[in-house]
Amino acid sequence: MKEVVAGVDIGGTNTMIGFVDAEGVIHAEGRLSTPEYAFADDFVIGLDTKLKEMLAEHPGLKLIGIGIGAPNANFNKGTIELAPNLRWKGIIPLVKITERRTGLKTRITNDANAAALGEMIFGAAKKVKDFIILTLGTGLGSGIVVDGEVVYGHTGFAGELGHMTVVEGGRVCGCGRRGCLETYASATGLVRTVLALLSDRRDESLLRELKGSEITSRRIAEAAAAGDIIAQEALDQTARMIALGIANSVIFSSPEVIYLFGGLAQAGDAIFVPVRKYADELVQPVFRGTFRVEPSGLPEAQAAILGASALIWKDAGI
Amino acid sequence: MKEVVAGVDIGGTNTMIGFVDAEGVIHAEGRLSTPEYAFADDFVIGLDTKLKEMLAEHPGLKLIGIGIGAPNANFNKGTIELAPNLRWKGIIPLVKITERRTGLKTRITNDANAAALGEMIFGAAKKVKDFIILTLGTGLGSGIVVDGEVVYGHTGFAGELGHMTVVEGGRVCGCGRRGCLETYASATGLVRTVLALLSDRRDESLLRELKGSEITSRRIAEAAAAGDIIAQEALDQTARMIALGIANSVIFSSPEVIYLFGGLAQAGDAIFVPVRKYADELVQPVFRGTFRVEPSGLPEAQAAILGASALIWKDAGI
Repeated sequence: MKEVVAGVDIGGTNTMIGFVDAEGVIHAEGRLSTPEYAFADDFVIGLDTKLKEMLAEHPGLKLIGIGIGAPNANFNKGTIELAPNLRWKGIIPLVKITERRTGLKTRITNDANAAALGEMIFGAAKKVKDFIILTLGTGLGSGIVVDGEVVYGHTGFAGELGHMTVVEGGRVCGCGRRGCLETYASATGLVRTVLALLSDRRDESLLRELKGSEITSRRIAEAAAAGDIIAQEALDQTARMIALGIANSVIFSSPEVIYLFGGLAQAGDAIFVPVRKYADELVQPVFRGTFRVEPSGLPEAQAAILGASALIWKDAGI
Repeated sequence: MKEVVAGVDIGGTNTMIGFVDAEGVIHAEGRLSTPEYAFADDFVIGLDTKLKEMLAEHPGLKLIGIGIGAPNANFNKGTIELAPNLRWKGIIPLVKITERRTGLKTRITNDANAAALGEMIFGAAKKVKDFIILTLGTGLGSGIVVDGEVVYGHTGFAGELGHMTVVEGGRVCGCGRRGCLETYASATGLVRTVLALLSDRRDESLLRELKGSEITSRRIAEAAAAGDIIAQEALDQTARMIALGIANSVIFSSPEVIYLFGGLAQAGDAIFVPVRKYADELVQPVFRGTFRVEPSGLPEAQAAILGASALIWKDAGI
């Protein structure tokens, strides 16, 4: 029997499930529609049923635990708390409910911490004890690893670098404040920077031909590659803000590597070259040359499931 | 025989030595003139001689190790590196030299990390696993504790919160950059804020009667207590910047307590009340009410020696 962990990635729309072995190979995959379950108890029944179906289809596999990545998840308490994108309101003790139903050891953390664990167990950080992963998507998520352990902090919610204040009185953030890093350093932040530049500058731009809602980080990257000055400037400003977030993180925990993950990191050199340049410029001189900025070693499509499963595999001491 | 650790606090002018027992009681004290020793090797010979003298005067004590707090000290490597305030140039392997000379287990870290260790072993943080200590003096030093361990990071230099960029293009910092937290949130920063307010405002102020070089954080605190508007505003702005540094640290490691230490923390309610108010206002809402801002539990005069000795006592598992 091959031992596997169920890596479960709970999103607002889909819950993706994968049976992951100790080497990070996914042996089976499944899907649930998250909003179909009005209550977390129903969801756990649905999950348990799906896991049993998947096991029945793969008789050579033995399930040893369940690792869950979810928005607003609290590792310390095993809960999902006040998640705006889920139907389950309040504080949900998902680990307890799942363990009771399935009889399997269950752990939960948020998406970015799961990404950090995935990087540590299956990705580029196998030999790195001190690193930070930044997930650059709609927002900016982060997972922080100090001396081989994910930092959860007193509350279990540590690692919210997207809400570092970088511009006092700056852009309005979804958290209710202004000037948070993720309002600049994310795919959404990049789009906002383009809108600001279109208003501020008089340069011609391919992006002026698009409706505001059509401007995406992908279109901006394409326009920049085609020589569009506004798009290039926006990417540069975004890279500088990512670098500022990195500089302010390096003075905190002095990581060896900062991994970039997510849509914006796919822009490759167009993002990594300026981020590295600005990070070196913006960081306290004593740390220059002491850290690297690298792409994540996990495939984008599987990272969430691999990361969630790593919650269990890490304890198994592989 | 009572077991003691030599807590050694190396400063640019004086090196203070104390024999500290496992309960944090100092049984003997000594002093060396740091600049008298042109080379670190000479210093270690002087230290060894002094320790033997102190032991000869206190025959009931048994020395089990040496903990050193020093500027620019690197815990990971056991070195002092490029310390601007010491005569010893380059990278000094002080731990190795000291262990070879004395035969005693020796550890070194910088002043702020030593303060964190002192707080953990002998001070207010005995039962706190996640905390940060900010030392508010000429600059802003910091020691970060995550899950009961000081964060040293990949380089051994982690915890430089004084060099968090909080105002892009802001005040010139000794590190060569601009806008670092310590240019605002320190005793020196408070004085600079007074100078800025004296230039900006037309209010009468007791502080206008002083030469620039006579304006100190103590005088400002006194003036504020006497109702001086400029002094009060400067304290308020300084408190807000300390709070911004705290808010940007809480999202990182989610500490249970932030301890304030040093001259500025002596101002009591005049600093703690506004710092707490602003920290609550400036932090990401999910962390509101999850952390406390408290005074250090160590006596100012003994903190450095206690903290240095804690480097050894921590390993002894008390």
